[in-house]
Amino acid sequence: MKDFVIIGHKALTTGDFSLNDLPGSAGRMDILCRCVNSALFLSHGMRRDINVHLVLLGDPDPGKIIRFNGEKLKYLNPDERSSGSLIKKALERDAIKYETQSTPGVWIRRAGLEELLAEFKDAGRDIYYLKEDGKDIREYTDLNTDAVFVLGDHMGVTEEEEEIIARVAKQTLNIGPISLHSDHCMIIIHNELDRKEA
Amino acid sequence: MKDFVIIGHKALTTGDFSLNDLPGSAGRMDILCRCVNSALFLSHGMRRDINVHLVLLGDPDPGKIIRFNGEKLKYLNPDERSSGSLIKKALERDAIKYETQSTPGVWIRRAGLEELLAEFKDAGRDIYYLKEDGKDIREYTDLNTDAVFVLGDHMGVTEEEEEIIARVAKQTLNIGPISLHSDHCMIIIHNELDRKEA
Repeated sequence: MKDFVIIGHKALTTGDFSLNDLPGSAGRMDILCRCVNSALFLSHGMRRDINVHLVLLGDPDPGKIIRFNGEKLKYLNPDERSSGSLIKKALERDAIKYETQSTPGVWIRRAGLEELLAEFKDAGRDIYYLKEDGKDIREYTDLNTDAVFVLGDHMGVTEEEEEIIARVAKQTLNIGPISLHSDHCMIIIHNELDRKEA
Repeated sequence: MKDFVIIGHKALTTGDFSLNDLPGSAGRMDILCRCVNSALFLSHGMRRDINVHLVLLGDPDPGKIIRFNGEKLKYLNPDERSSGSLIKKALERDAIKYETQSTPGVWIRRAGLEELLAEFKDAGRDIYYLKEDGKDIREYTDLNTDAVFVLGDHMGVTEEEEEIIARVAKQTLNIGPISLHSDHCMIIIHNELDRKEA
């Protein structure tokens, strides 16, 4: 299993938004929609060994995590509205401490970054933090294909979040010489792992 | 300059579509929108040395090419609706043999794949065809950073198109062991070129 964690600093935490305005009133939800696409889609099918965790920190009720699981997922198409619609349906559920399934393969719960990363650490998973000043992923020979990758959104990662990540991360990695959007970084991570597994 | 050519076999050739239904009534226009995003966006800015050519072959008036130019482009945001909206505005113009600018950095004209590729060939550009059975892009040492890359959409490339491409292509390239969506392939091509140029 591979897990991607994306922090949505402004992402709305209620389902009360329009699919016609994902970047605006939904708090740059378009970014998270594209990350879901990058994490899961193959040319003719879906990556089944993937979890995507969207950490939603926007108003009005910050601290919810939506998980997309490639193995169980249904009703997801590649376009942004499709993932946006599944996120909206998840946010229409009450988020409690334990995961509730909103549609097949999509769960929501009340939790934050620290809690999520602690769970991965407890499970013995290797956690990688993606950042410009990290080690080049192509040169990093220890890369575990059963890993967790943590990425920021358009606002990057706050100092406080960076401290949380630094406490558990095995390595900071970088995907190349130019800074890219998170969904684009995920494609390069996948390509590296695909090549390792081939 | 780098040029990406994407063939949209079903992409509508009139502006008479809804931005709320890019995958459906617009003929999988969502694919082309994501390709525009992949070609042009950096984390904090835009790739200026890029042209994206969308070859639109769907009803009702097939054979139009929309070009996005990174240097002149304005009003483009990363979300699908944003590129969809600029495509729609271009398609609302009359397409003639010569390019007409519909919004800053976006042009439309009446032309097809064969004509477009012949122009690149005449200009002495290296043309690469992206396909699963091509040579691994990482192992291909002759890759020119001033190149043209041709990709299909969800329907791939027809036999007839493949013959047209084969006549002008310098090399068929492959981005990795697993078949990906065109917009994802473009990210990997960019990464390879970014690394070459770094």
